Amino acid sequence: MKEFELIKHFFTKQAVKRKDVVLGIGDDCAVLSPIENQNIVVTTDTLVAGVHFPFDTSPRAIGHKAVAVNLSDIAAMGAKPSWLSLAITLPNIDEAWLIEFCEGVFELCEFYNVELIGGDTTQGPLSITITAQGLTPEGSYLSRSGAKSGDWLYVTGELGDAALALQQITGKVDIEPQFIDIIKNKLDYPKPRVLAGQTLREYASSAIDLSDGLIADLGHICQASNVGANIVLDALPLSNIMRDSLLTDDAITLALSGGDDYELLFTVNEDNKVGMETAMSHAGTPVTCIGQLNASQTISTTLNNKPVPINTAGFEHFSE
Amino acid sequence: MKEFELIKHFFTKQAVKRKDVVLGIGDDCAVLSPIENQNIVVTTDTLVAGVHFPFDTSPRAIGHKAVAVNLSDIAAMGAKPSWLSLAITLPNIDEAWLIEFCEGVFELCEFYNVELIGGDTTQGPLSITITAQGLTPEGSYLSRSGAKSGDWLYVTGELGDAALALQQITGKVDIEPQFIDIIKNKLDYPKPRVLAGQTLREYASSAIDLSDGLIADLGHICQASNVGANIVLDALPLSNIMRDSLLTDDAITLALSGGDDYELLFTVNEDNKVGMETAMSHAGTPVTCIGQLNASQTISTTLNNKPVPINTAGFEHFSE
Repeated sequence: MKEFELIKHFFTKQAVKRKDVVLGIGDDCAVLSPIENQNIVVTTDTLVAGVHFPFDTSPRAIGHKAVAVNLSDIAAMGAKPSWLSLAITLPNIDEAWLIEFCEGVFELCEFYNVELIGGDTTQGPLSITITAQGLTPEGSYLSRSGAKSGDWLYVTGELGDAALALQQITGKVDIEPQFIDIIKNKLDYPKPRVLAGQTLREYASSAIDLSDGLIADLGHICQASNVGANIVLDALPLSNIMRDSLLTDDAITLALSGGDDYELLFTVNEDNKVGMETAMSHAGTPVTCIGQLNASQTISTTLNNKPVPINTAGFEHFSE
Repeated sequence: MKEFELIKHFFTKQAVKRKDVVLGIGDDCAVLSPIENQNIVVTTDTLVAGVHFPFDTSPRAIGHKAVAVNLSDIAAMGAKPSWLSLAITLPNIDEAWLIEFCEGVFELCEFYNVELIGGDTTQGPLSITITAQGLTPEGSYLSRSGAKSGDWLYVTGELGDAALALQQITGKVDIEPQFIDIIKNKLDYPKPRVLAGQTLREYASSAIDLSDGLIADLGHICQASNVGANIVLDALPLSNIMRDSLLTDDAITLALSGGDDYELLFTVNEDNKVGMETAMSHAGTPVTCIGQLNASQTISTTLNNKPVPINTAGFEHFSE
């Protein structure tokens, strides 16, 4: 099968047709006509087989995750996702694989009304790069740099389950059989906090999505906002499976540095605290206050009201 | 060196700062604020080491080409390039390599006032995916689908030299030593026809960039526009090196199907022919009329006014 037939065949079967897409897949470029007074947000993320997901990951999970990690970045800006460009490098053409991969991609696209506007299909070691774009009313986006000393530090959802799943897969930890699918699902099918992000636009002073681990990503907010932070370790939202499977210290370490959570980490000033909590409750998104920002320029942690030292390295693709 | 320091270090040193980039590299997303009444055009292209360029290609050439092939797609839409997202997968971090690669990327960005707005750096087999965006006055873009029977078929520049260089590298043809650098330069440093594309917006009925070879790319115009075409082989613009190095038949084959030219193939109706030729002459872009469209739904070729059969397969990444 030829490259162009491949693209047409698998990637043009989407249900989403947006009004602001003048020309979709099939020309040298897509043509967009966004409405006025909107900012466009743009993000790019690559997933490489054997690095970002195990080689035997299901194609549907790969498709889902490639879209989800990008939508998570858009959520962290408080924007509404709109368009995707998908570049896929494949060792060979496997129709069954591609059909499942597209299911994973299009499920999320349909849920969020995101249109696939183009891409490229090349031969080589398996890897997927998606560039996702989103829209937000002009000047109203969230960034990493708006946090102030005294703001409260929050996360959505629970932390560390994806990292726990990875530990289970690599044989580093034993999980009770009935829980394995539940935590593997968190690793393979992360749910980007798209609606929560848009809700936060009115309340948060800064936001980031948790891809590299809490400490590393909080470090990005602290650096960009020129603040420090204290994390109350007792407050970290851990799942019941996590609490049952690991000693408290190990569970906290995973929640702090495991990565792959795709929850939102955000800051709110005192005045917006109640409004935010009410709005997030109406939106059905669980949030937990895990600490507070300060002027120290460092990240500290406390347990039972006592300071405890932490390893702030987080997860890095290239280690020193 | 850590991933984030890597990105900061190498990719934030660009000279271009556009007014429509509210937030550049360094947050979850870039934030753009395009002026009103413009269409945005978007394209994505991946280059894989060993597939799209030999493993020993200079990093500057890889950087240049990764940008050039994307800008060429934007040129084919008649748009002005504006923003780039760059995803690079590297087997390891080699500072000298990255410095040269960035030179190749930024040279073209600076020339065309294109800002790198973000990207991703991952570990794995060498590959580069760029998503490029451009702007064009609302409704005035070129596409593959506007060509009509009777329109004249044109190309910019000369055809086949990049393919000739590839044949020389793989030992399939001998080139006189003094010419090798000249044609290798055409393969490694293609010049996207960005200014020519914008000029053509007023005159052309359709356009495409020549990446897959003349026959294959003309096939895309014919299919999208529901027309056929006859190519006058005697008229194909071949370089002097091509004429000196190959028999006429072989030179024509390479010009028809070699690919990697990154010239523009476009169609113009009778009324716009003189205006287009004058405008392109003022723009300093050589153009050649190589045939005419017809209602046949097929592509034919003539040599010395006589029909000759051709192989219309063109270049495909996945062969049947």
